[in-house]
Amino acid sequence: MSVVVQTIPRARPEVIDGLARAGVATVHESQGRKGCLQSYMRPIYAGAQVAGSAVTISAPPGDNWMLHVAIEQLQAGDLLVLSPTSPCDNGYFGDLLATSAMARGCRGLIIDAGVRDIRDLTAMRFPVWSKAISAQGTVKETLGSVNIPIVFAGQVIEAGDIIVADDDGVVVVKLAEAEAVLAAANRRLAAEEAKRAKLAAGVLGLDLYDMRPALKAKGLTYV
Amino acid sequence: MSVVVQTIPRARPEVIDGLARAGVATVHESQGRKGCLQSYMRPIYAGAQVAGSAVTISAPPGDNWMLHVAIEQLQAGDLLVLSPTSPCDNGYFGDLLATSAMARGCRGLIIDAGVRDIRDLTAMRFPVWSKAISAQGTVKETLGSVNIPIVFAGQVIEAGDIIVADDDGVVVVKLAEAEAVLAAANRRLAAEEAKRAKLAAGVLGLDLYDMRPALKAKGLTYV
Amino acid sequence: MSVVVQTIPRARPEVIDGLARAGVATVHESQGRKGCLQSYMRPIYAGAQVAGSAVTISAPPGDNWMLHVAIEQLQAGDLLVLSPTSPCDNGYFGDLLATSAMARGCRGLIIDAGVRDIRDLTAMRFPVWSKAISAQGTVKETLGSVNIPIVFAGQVIEAGDIIVADDDGVVVVKLAEAEAVLAAANRRLAAEEAKRAKLAAGVLGLDLYDMRPALKAKGLTYV
Amino acid sequence: MSVVVQTIPRARPEVIDGLARAGVATVHESQGRKGCLQSYMRPIYAGAQVAGSAVTISAPPGDNWMLHVAIEQLQAGDLLVLSPTSPCDNGYFGDLLATSAMARGCRGLIIDAGVRDIRDLTAMRFPVWSKAISAQGTVKETLGSVNIPIVFAGQVIEAGDIIVADDDGVVVVKLAEAEAVLAAANRRLAAEEAKRAKLAAGVLGLDLYDMRPALKAKGLTYV
Amino acid sequence: MSVVVQTIPRARPEVIDGLARAGVATVHESQGRKGCLQSYMRPIYAGAQVAGSAVTISAPPGDNWMLHVAIEQLQAGDLLVLSPTSPCDNGYFGDLLATSAMARGCRGLIIDAGVRDIRDLTAMRFPVWSKAISAQGTVKETLGSVNIPIVFAGQVIEAGDIIVADDDGVVVVKLAEAEAVLAAANRRLAAEEAKRAKLAAGVLGLDLYDMRPALKAKGLTYV
Amino acid sequence: MSVVVQTIPRARPEVIDGLARAGVATVHESQGRKGCLQSYMRPIYAGAQVAGSAVTISAPPGDNWMLHVAIEQLQAGDLLVLSPTSPCDNGYFGDLLATSAMARGCRGLIIDAGVRDIRDLTAMRFPVWSKAISAQGTVKETLGSVNIPIVFAGQVIEAGDIIVADDDGVVVVKLAEAEAVLAAANRRLAAEEAKRAKLAAGVLGLDLYDMRPALKAKGLTYV
Repeated sequence: MSVVVQTIPRARPEVIDGLARAGVATVHESQGRKGCLQSYMRPIYAGAQVAGSAVTISAPPGDNWMLHVAIEQLQAGDLLVLSPTSPCDNGYFGDLLATSAMARGCRGLIIDAGVRDIRDLTAMRFPVWSKAISAQGTVKETLGSVNIPIVFAGQVIEAGDIIVADDDGVVVVKLAEAEAVLAAANRRLAAEEAKRAKLAAGVLGLDLYDMRPALKAKGLTYV
Repeated sequence: MSVVVQTIPRARPEVIDGLARAGVATVHESQGRKGCLQSYMRPIYAGAQVAGSAVTISAPPGDNWMLHVAIEQLQAGDLLVLSPTSPCDNGYFGDLLATSAMARGCRGLIIDAGVRDIRDLTAMRFPVWSKAISAQGTVKETLGSVNIPIVFAGQVIEAGDIIVADDDGVVVVKLAEAEAVLAAANRRLAAEEAKRAKLAAGVLGLDLYDMRPALKAKGLTYV
Repeated sequence: MSVVVQTIPRARPEVIDGLARAGVATVHESQGRKGCLQSYMRPIYAGAQVAGSAVTISAPPGDNWMLHVAIEQLQAGDLLVLSPTSPCDNGYFGDLLATSAMARGCRGLIIDAGVRDIRDLTAMRFPVWSKAISAQGTVKETLGSVNIPIVFAGQVIEAGDIIVADDDGVVVVKLAEAEAVLAAANRRLAAEEAKRAKLAAGVLGLDLYDMRPALKAKGLTYV
Repeated sequence: MSVVVQTIPRARPEVIDGLARAGVATVHESQGRKGCLQSYMRPIYAGAQVAGSAVTISAPPGDNWMLHVAIEQLQAGDLLVLSPTSPCDNGYFGDLLATSAMARGCRGLIIDAGVRDIRDLTAMRFPVWSKAISAQGTVKETLGSVNIPIVFAGQVIEAGDIIVADDDGVVVVKLAEAEAVLAAANRRLAAEEAKRAKLAAGVLGLDLYDMRPALKAKGLTYV
Repeated sequence: MSVVVQTIPRARPEVIDGLARAGVATVHESQGRKGCLQSYMRPIYAGAQVAGSAVTISAPPGDNWMLHVAIEQLQAGDLLVLSPTSPCDNGYFGDLLATSAMARGCRGLIIDAGVRDIRDLTAMRFPVWSKAISAQGTVKETLGSVNIPIVFAGQVIEAGDIIVADDDGVVVVKLAEAEAVLAAANRRLAAEEAKRAKLAAGVLGLDLYDMRPALKAKGLTYV
Repeated sequence: MSVVVQTIPRARPEVIDGLARAGVATVHESQGRKGCLQSYMRPIYAGAQVAGSAVTISAPPGDNWMLHVAIEQLQAGDLLVLSPTSPCDNGYFGDLLATSAMARGCRGLIIDAGVRDIRDLTAMRFPVWSKAISAQGTVKETLGSVNIPIVFAGQVIEAGDIIVADDDGVVVVKLAEAEAVLAAANRRLAAEEAKRAKLAAGVLGLDLYDMRPALKAKGLTYV
């Protein structure tokens, strides 16, 4: 059955923005090393770093009809998150859909399939993380669903989960854990700041983290 | 037998330039969703968008001798299009060959193999779409052919066919269909312009394309 | 047994810098077409071109402890070169390790695994050539070795070998051959300069390299 | 946190055995074309066709400790289903573990990683569907969990879900749907029997399924 | 436009059967090292060795409707040859279609996509060479064409071309060249018979083919 | 320079045969989890289990001339081990070369490239572990070397090293370590025999290896 869930929970905007500032690697560590999408998910251009509430789309292979349905469900601060029901590299999304999504405040697209109009999307600064780039488009014939839980590149994503994406890839934060993860991330960032200054001054990680005794105990031999 | 076909047909320059302006995704749609090379064909740098008449090269694996032969056949506005007879990732082409090709007005290279001297090619703004980047060069020992039909990443390409390439990949337009495809592409571009303005103003695709009745008829359920 | 070899031979700085200027493709040709790492090794950003003495690291999969140990062994002009003992795409290295390595004059990292904090590394201009990009980090539990010979993407690399890396990929020069390879590379570069000018002026490679007789002898037919 | 859920629901044995007889392709169709694991999951030998209740294992990469923990949870008719938390091809499982699992009535292993001792496993007729075959073993150092929901090759699998596997691959049936899926599968099998006899007698699918009017309506042209 | 070409040329049965006996590797050499499909095309079971006239099918991704149309066009001695218009791994073909095809004398299927019901097809000894095995089936909604030229795994195949397939893969012989290729293959097989006896008796290839002078001339050094 | 090293060291036949009996997985563990070739190396048919002294071949891509040179260097009990200098999937080896190699007592071929005549090689029971199967043959134009150290699928192999291969893949044992590895392997096999009996009788690995205290100490929780 094809359904569109119209009401979804969302994290508070300042939590989402805080997670965006922390970035993917820090968020991944801060939630106990979980939630990374598989590493084939790559940005279409370098330098974007965003977070948003997931509006999830389960779509048939080679059919982008549900993207139009999902765009109506977008609120400012959301990200579109599309997983096809069977592997597909076709270009589901291009500059017209991006124009429409941006008009509703959408912050980007995460898609386990292909995307096209890369030059236009780059010029518009509409960030996309995708499995493929392909000029080969799709049809609009078969239904899917919007805002149901989906399996995406090794993770389950539910509508309203927070997606963080940057040049390192994409990580999903469960909605219920978002505030705690942000707090942990902020602590981590603060601690890293102090470490960075020492490392830049030439202090070795071996000393900063007091690793020498443990290395010796494990049997590391210097020759 | 190894042959060089010296006289090939070409489309009119304004047709070629019009297809370049339309870009790969639009051309692909405008000719009935056919002609895309497989999506592993990627540009060596972002932002190039070109079209040209194909000067085709069938070359042995790891042997770039025929590139020199093909360059003599180039006219201004042509693209070199090389497919090896057996899969190969070696770097067939670098900055010296690009210098020679540019001296004859060549607009770029499409190669189902590897390329090298990426930094120089980028600085020269000589665009290449390739399967691989590899510093490992080739030899000059075995003949191939120039301007015969070749099979390339899932398509047949004949000398004089128009190749369009941009950040989305590469599409081939059959010479006999080029004028009609350009006309269809221009109609498509004009129509998209009006749609883009409406979508940017917040009109939904659901309404712009009148999708709601069809979605309802197929059974889409809002909850 | 896990060992750290503390004294390694290095080439003279001017040899290393000369090889950097020559670049990967020229160095590869100049040493008889050998030494290229497999072509899946790609830079995290375009435009870097470096050379350095290899400080080699053999590390367990998913464990980056030895990077801290190796950083202590760095001298100005060195490159970190890490190969895991079993295939792994995890992100072994990020901006803190880069800060520490740069404080010791390290010129970059070559890693047959993953890396993260791409945006920061790019901003710092710390170049990395890697097999993967992944936000998924590693642990610090198991020992490896530093400055022992390692097998890396199809080549054997010993501590002190010179690694050259640019947008074309990565090539290794054996320490004992470095001076001779540089001499050959410089001869090659000088010869290319003259050729480039002629090719730019429209002279064909067919004539510049006197290929026509050999092509004819092999049976190439013009039609 | 690492947990072992000791009590899991299971389908009735006759339902499980019925699904095994139906096979993967029929089950997939009978539950509305969903539930197939990605097609890289392949059997280690041809001809096995099984079904069982999933005992799920979430294990660290390169660490097979949890397999021992999971074997204690097995009942006759179960299948071990292991997904690593990070991609890994190591050989987690061999003939000793298979001996132990068979002693508890286990029907096979589904693993999104590697397996080894293929010759012994084949001789023992212990079927395995895996992503890889690798002699490289694992360690026993880090905890995971048993009988929690896992994401596996594009599907979510919960303990007690029914896994069906044969030469076509692997499909998961949600426990709550198992009886209905079996009923649908049995209807499908009965209908296929009649069709098979007619097709074997030379009746065309075009006529058996009355396709000619629809093909003509869509515009199929015979020349 | 979707068309079915109903009349196609075919080679004489004894030519087809002769090519089957020669096998893929010999045929490939005998026609000047051309015509091999890419090496990802693999048999679903070992030991089959067939040849037949190609009945070609161009089908949409994930849609197997045209297979039913093509089966009506089969004559005894034909092979079905299906290429999707966009990459797809779905299982287009199973035991019911095989039953129907066998009833018309079809010798097998060559498919640049997926197949299923492997256990049944193996039991029926209906050989298939495919890119993938997948239980995930297809729909019957969109037209394609039958007996038009198709691009398939790097080769162009026209209806009536002879396809030869065995454990080494698949090779296509152009219809117009079939008799000459068979003659060359038979000469090659006869010559190999004599060589095989000498090699089995311990004569070295170095002597049988008189390679020593050429190796010495090229500079091979024994140490 | 191209050389053939004519005199190589070899392990004693009973050591080689003992390693063959132990098999790949046991040998890999017995030498400290090292030496496995990457897991893409697969046997052409199931069930073979061999060991032999490596006669190494470094060959140009697409050129099998050196195989003839290497066969002259074979003694009974040797294995041919070929690595191309650039990635290549062509079929370097078929039934005629196998006939010649068998006449000299060769036990098989390990090749980081392609092989062909699979049906004949299977019938002859000449085992091959390869990266690919391809009917596309090679030429005999360029020299390589025999019995020099080669890099092969992640390992360095020297002439006379012992190669062990079975359905799990391939492992290399350094000649100097062969006797010690065999002793360790035999101890391991003996220990496994006792364990297998207990596991078959229903003793759990948790108890046999006394894992419960360590699992509890790490924090495993039963619910």
